[in-house]
Amino acid sequence: MTTVTETARKTTILPPLPKPFTEKQAPTIRLYPVSNYTFDVKEAQPEEDNSVTGRLQRLQEQYETSGMRRTCEGILVCHEHGHPYVLLLQIANTFFKLPGDYIQPDQDEITGFKQRLNERLAPAKDSEHASDPINSEWEIGDCITQWWRPNFETFMYPFIPPHISRPKECKKMFLIHLPKHKVLSVPQNMKLLAVPLFELYDNATRYGNQLAAIPLYLSRYNFEFV
Amino acid sequence: MTTVTETARKTTILPPLPKPFTEKQAPTIRLYPVSNYTFDVKEAQPEEDNSVTGRLQRLQEQYETSGMRRTCEGILVCHEHGHPYVLLLQIANTFFKLPGDYIQPDQDEITGFKQRLNERLAPAKDSEHASDPINSEWEIGDCITQWWRPNFETFMYPFIPPHISRPKECKKMFLIHLPKHKVLSVPQNMKLLAVPLFELYDNATRYGNQLAAIPLYLSRYNFEFV
Ligand SMILES: [Zn+2]
Ligand SMILES: [Zn+2]
Ligand SMILES: [Zn+2]
Ligand SMILES: [Zn+2]
Repeated sequence: MTTVTETARKTTILPPLPKPFTEKQAPTIRLYPVSNYTFDVKEAQPEEDNSVTGRLQRLQEQYETSGMRRTCEGILVCHEHGHPYVLLLQIANTFFKLPGDYIQPDQDEITGFKQRLNERLAPAKDSEHASDPINSEWEIGDCITQWWRPNFETFMYPFIPPHISRPKECKKMFLIHLPKHKVLSVPQNMKLLAVPLFELYDNATRYGNQLAAIPLYLSRYNFEFV
Repeated sequence: MTTVTETARKTTILPPLPKPFTEKQAPTIRLYPVSNYTFDVKEAQPEEDNSVTGRLQRLQEQYETSGMRRTCEGILVCHEHGHPYVLLLQIANTFFKLPGDYIQPDQDEITGFKQRLNERLAPAKDSEHASDPINSEWEIGDCITQWWRPNFETFMYPFIPPHISRPKECKKMFLIHLPKHKVLSVPQNMKLLAVPLFELYDNATRYGNQLAAIPLYLSRYNFEFV
């Protein structure tokens, strides 16, 4: 028990600044406010497969003709009040996913990935926003995680499980450096939501293991909030 | 239902190799088998604080005189049968921690960190292994995560929570590149265990949030198993 009031106990003397603590650190990432981006609507994009079984069946067929599937997804980060927010697509008010998809077997990785990002988020060709090249350009940053699908089944792991020599899919997520302003055009059957790191963290129940881990993939970066 | 036997259905024709999938990728990390390392015993190292309350009390006192605490921990990786294993200290058969500790306020980060790693794992001065310099040298790699303690309380986050401007501690974990051979001397009251990524993954109940996330921090690397 103390007779000193709460206010009196709070010191106005700031603690000393510690010595530098930045060794072996990833470069600082510049983030812009979410309000810098314009969200537009475009035609709906139905799912390529109607069911999980259908999706795994197609994966298997593609594997037999073209080998391991290569999937690329983008982590688009902005901020609000100096806390990082990630842009997630929400489909049919239920599940969440990142923009991106599998790369066609004959395409190289970055070309195919940019094409997938544009399919999902660039303005439609007849839109007033299509003429500004910034709206269909993407600055692809570091690969920040790889997830592996060992079998033609739904589960994936952030490593190749022991005794698996031929994974069926590798999904990579890349940090996307957003420009200061950009129009993002979202298919009508989806929503693009800015979700704060503190909401994703430790929330696999809502976002799944891969997306709930986004704060962990990003934890080696420092951010500059412009 | 099918009349084709299991064996007959297995194809011996290998699927084609996909095109390259290595853009924006972290460098490949070379790992040696766990059997390359020698584990020795040295004098016990009791915990600096007897209780959680004592530890938080000391953190607060140090904060007032020296500012935010800087803590460095090392992720030492080796392999068994081509799967990565991380070296964890186990204390009193219960909790796990990484080698490392807080850095003295007047020390620079890397000097202080190497000293902490040696306190924990280098051979004692009078040991037969003390003469080989490799046993007290450390190759510090990338910072792979930062955890922040917003208050003088136990919880930490892999980001600075909103509206926190003066975190009380920043804990960084670094990848440590182990040499081909090394003697690691472990205090008698601790065990050094090689724990596979598949055991750590999604196992916060046993290892805590920070250590269970090691497979996620490492998921952007590819490994070469020597
Ligand atoms: Zn518009
Ligand atoms: Zn605010
Ligand atoms: Zn010995
Ligand atoms: Zn084995």
